[in-house]
Amino acid sequence: MKIGFIGLGNMGAAMAANLLKAGHVVTAYNRSPDKATALAAQGARPAASVADACQGDVVVTMLANDDAVRAVTFGDDGILASLSEGAVHVSSSTVSTALAERLTEAHATAGQGFVAAPVFGRPEAAAAAKLFVVAAGAPATVEKVSPVFDAIGQRTFILGEDPQAANLVKISGNFLIASVIESLGEAMALVSKAGVDKQQYLELLTSTLFDAPVYRTYGGLLAREEFTPAGFAATLGLKDVKLALSAGEELQVPLPVASLLRDRFLTLLATGGAELDWSAVGALSAWEAGSDHPA
Amino acid sequence: MKIGFIGLGNMGAAMAANLLKAGHVVTAYNRSPDKATALAAQGARPAASVADACQGDVVVTMLANDDAVRAVTFGDDGILASLSEGAVHVSSSTVSTALAERLTEAHATAGQGFVAAPVFGRPEAAAAAKLFVVAAGAPATVEKVSPVFDAIGQRTFILGEDPQAANLVKISGNFLIASVIESLGEAMALVSKAGVDKQQYLELLTSTLFDAPVYRTYGGLLAREEFTPAGFAATLGLKDVKLALSAGEELQVPLPVASLLRDRFLTLLATGGAELDWSAVGALSAWEAGSDHPA
Amino acid sequence: MKIGFIGLGNMGAAMAANLLKAGHVVTAYNRSPDKATALAAQGARPAASVADACQGDVVVTMLANDDAVRAVTFGDDGILASLSEGAVHVSSSTVSTALAERLTEAHATAGQGFVAAPVFGRPEAAAAAKLFVVAAGAPATVEKVSPVFDAIGQRTFILGEDPQAANLVKISGNFLIASVIESLGEAMALVSKAGVDKQQYLELLTSTLFDAPVYRTYGGLLAREEFTPAGFAATLGLKDVKLALSAGEELQVPLPVASLLRDRFLTLLATGGAELDWSAVGALSAWEAGSDHPA
Amino acid sequence: MKIGFIGLGNMGAAMAANLLKAGHVVTAYNRSPDKATALAAQGARPAASVADACQGDVVVTMLANDDAVRAVTFGDDGILASLSEGAVHVSSSTVSTALAERLTEAHATAGQGFVAAPVFGRPEAAAAAKLFVVAAGAPATVEKVSPVFDAIGQRTFILGEDPQAANLVKISGNFLIASVIESLGEAMALVSKAGVDKQQYLELLTSTLFDAPVYRTYGGLLAREEFTPAGFAATLGLKDVKLALSAGEELQVPLPVASLLRDRFLTLLATGGAELDWSAVGALSAWEAGSDHPA
Repeated sequence: MKIGFIGLGNMGAAMAANLLKAGHVVTAYNRSPDKATALAAQGARPAASVADACQGDVVVTMLANDDAVRAVTFGDDGILASLSEGAVHVSSSTVSTALAERLTEAHATAGQGFVAAPVFGRPEAAAAAKLFVVAAGAPATVEKVSPVFDAIGQRTFILGEDPQAANLVKISGNFLIASVIESLGEAMALVSKAGVDKQQYLELLTSTLFDAPVYRTYGGLLAREEFTPAGFAATLGLKDVKLALSAGEELQVPLPVASLLRDRFLTLLATGGAELDWSAVGALSAWEAGSDHPA
Repeated sequence: MKIGFIGLGNMGAAMAANLLKAGHVVTAYNRSPDKATALAAQGARPAASVADACQGDVVVTMLANDDAVRAVTFGDDGILASLSEGAVHVSSSTVSTALAERLTEAHATAGQGFVAAPVFGRPEAAAAAKLFVVAAGAPATVEKVSPVFDAIGQRTFILGEDPQAANLVKISGNFLIASVIESLGEAMALVSKAGVDKQQYLELLTSTLFDAPVYRTYGGLLAREEFTPAGFAATLGLKDVKLALSAGEELQVPLPVASLLRDRFLTLLATGGAELDWSAVGALSAWEAGSDHPA
Repeated sequence: MKIGFIGLGNMGAAMAANLLKAGHVVTAYNRSPDKATALAAQGARPAASVADACQGDVVVTMLANDDAVRAVTFGDDGILASLSEGAVHVSSSTVSTALAERLTEAHATAGQGFVAAPVFGRPEAAAAAKLFVVAAGAPATVEKVSPVFDAIGQRTFILGEDPQAANLVKISGNFLIASVIESLGEAMALVSKAGVDKQQYLELLTSTLFDAPVYRTYGGLLAREEFTPAGFAATLGLKDVKLALSAGEELQVPLPVASLLRDRFLTLLATGGAELDWSAVGALSAWEAGSDHPA
Repeated sequence: MKIGFIGLGNMGAAMAANLLKAGHVVTAYNRSPDKATALAAQGARPAASVADACQGDVVVTMLANDDAVRAVTFGDDGILASLSEGAVHVSSSTVSTALAERLTEAHATAGQGFVAAPVFGRPEAAAAAKLFVVAAGAPATVEKVSPVFDAIGQRTFILGEDPQAANLVKISGNFLIASVIESLGEAMALVSKAGVDKQQYLELLTSTLFDAPVYRTYGGLLAREEFTPAGFAATLGLKDVKLALSAGEELQVPLPVASLLRDRFLTLLATGGAELDWSAVGALSAWEAGSDHPA
């Protein structure tokens, strides 16, 4: 397929590279053009503009937040104005359900397709084409863009016709990851202050009831206190918790663990941890218990 | 081995039955004697008293809380007064680290062995001899009683020489389970209010980052709203969260998620849910969001 | 002075009436015109439009939220476009610090004055001209509009030159009131479940360390469970707590009590309490403890 | 009256001195005898033992916690064994409702009177005989010991016949004070990070809705960051919050603000603040927002 790709951060660059490996023709755009140049070595055509990346059958966006997606979608030379009728915008960014709803309507009005397809997985998983894709949109449209998902992920979950459901699931999933970080951080602060070795403790947990990637990955980062370089920065963690809280406000669902996490992330940012991996929020319990701050 | 077994609730009865199956000679005691009679059909000798269950090489206690363990251990005809020198008390109950410390000292003074060996697993796992045993105590003593662990569990983790470390790990593990119940409950309240099917959501989670027994077991109970009969009652859940908080107080480690859970369990108890499975605390988010109360 | 007044809800109507009593010439505008007609009986001239209310020396806005203030300020026939050079916009609404900053800049660019002057006090205090006014802005401008404050309040606090500081203080003050409601609600749930009379308890508190209007007013509402009619609706309470949380996010200050309050208000709204007075959040503790829901 | 007084800390020494000033005959006991010697200069007779302080009509205990009260009351030479029939034990310590219940029964069995009479006020108020006394017990007994209350306080509230109600009210009152410290700490962290002066902010609050001693006293300590010497130590603050949580557990009332406070106090203790005044928990919000730790 002829695919435009907008947003070449840690995640996007790896996803675009896998689209190339799968044989797709990729035109890649990034706000700072050096990232597009790097991808060109792998066969991508650097796009001169957002509009230039919208000439194919599909354009994938993988950007940091709502503002970034709005900036490339709306406006005179944005995706909406540039995409052909019948072409499809695949939004893989973690954005608000409100924006997903607005994009759904805007693309429908423009006679274009829209699929929300956020992904689970850190940069290593993106590089290995091992992401999990959570997709939602009109069935025919989702079907049409499924080669994109096959190239970047190990499995795709189709959630139904309403794109924002995919975003809500992604948001709730990131909330669940953050809640694991927090509760593991509390438990590790407790047992390690009594002298139990954190690695041994984690080995016990992940050999029993907690035998899941989320405990192995984040438990390992916490046990090793390995918060740099950030695979997913604390600022993004705060953004995602705020997306969960906003969704909860719209739906009138109180989320006390998410509220706690919001305060944890703010503390981490205010005390010098903005550049750390988001798993560093799990180290704040030990800090409150008298250990060193993670930053 | 000649083994005494004290406490024949859901968990204890299954564990004692597996000791019988493994060929051990079991003398079983329960405060209400009908439970011991039931086990007799499987080959156990009913004990007339606590002292009567203390005539072998090992006595295992599997009781509801600190008070129950204190009641059978101390006093004129308790375990301390009845156990032979060199025999071993294996405490599998989930009790406080403070009690574990007291038991360690008391048995050492009496020339008896003491091993803390709490277990992870619900009654189904106990029946299938699939428990995880977390043991701590003097190495030779732990070695001596290891046939007990082989008979009841699928794997034993040896944590070191200090018995109370095993209790702390067990307490922290139950806290982690409860934190999964709470955060899953919040996430499910959120996505299901937006129309996402809870079973499909759980399938997605447990196929990806959250592919662990704790999510499958408790996520299933939450998705099916299946809170009776209680595999582990809400009152016991509150007890365990309070044990975590007490350990945190002794060690000066704040545990905000445990604090939230304490309040959740109190709410569940005060609103008619004392008899429900502890997973019902995860349904309180949906209740606060306007759904029916789980009781 | 010739004063325009925009927003004739419970608070605004009372404030405008007191401006009339003090001898000012008031042109009053409300989106639904019947409110302006009612005030006309007290001597106000009903304005046909926002622009029509901007012909005097000062225009006061007293509206429900950021959206409402933005709607009357910006746009073709808004305050910015209609106010004379040198005239002053006094914003008494409880709005975000971000909007206060935007208004400050916009009016400065237009050669107009801007004073943020939020008020403390419920409708009864507004009717009695007993509000407390918290004002900030350029000193000469604040001086110029001080007759407005004299007419509506019992005391004016001047906070400095930066209008958004007044809004932040107002937002923090409402957060403090809400925190009193929550903590009093918890304390009353506790003592009343033990049989202590809530009125007697409140009398004791307000005769000793807690001898302040905030405890008398909100304690009285809680003790009498008097949540209708709403002097200040739960939806507005949620709005104000969210303003506090937003200010905390901008300034990177975690606010755990505000986070708790956010969840409390969402619970109240989701369970049928949207129309109640915001003090009803203080009754949720008793609800969780097994009493009836306040709605 | 002939009064025994046990417990001569900051509070007790001041209360005993006021009993002397009012003309009572006071026999004073303290575990470390130098405190009793100091009071002797004001006319008290130093007691050689607890029993020695129990020879009069009344014995007042003013001690740090449940353990201390139990230690002087029960046992061979304790108050129960030493007090004459018909004499009265006035317990002014802040103790658990469970202990109050036990004392009530024990003294009744011994034919002695028991009145729970905890007090509100810091050491300055105790020195000035300006305490508020909250008393509960059999009416005739309360009446009999009322000269004690007249000598130490500015006002006495009689709560009924059940002594533990007085303790519950005292516990809930200290919880309310702590909740003011926390919420004021959050609000001050917020406004002061935006440049608002804390003293001016406090002046505004205490001139309006928050015109109460609790805001003036604790707001002043927070605004001046004056946490030493401790009028009431952080360790005692933690004890009292735990008493509130325990009472909530017995009565099945969740107390989320108290849960937050528990974690705050643990953080303060674990990070070097055990010796500070309990108002220092209010400085932890600013610490989390990037300011210096209060210790």
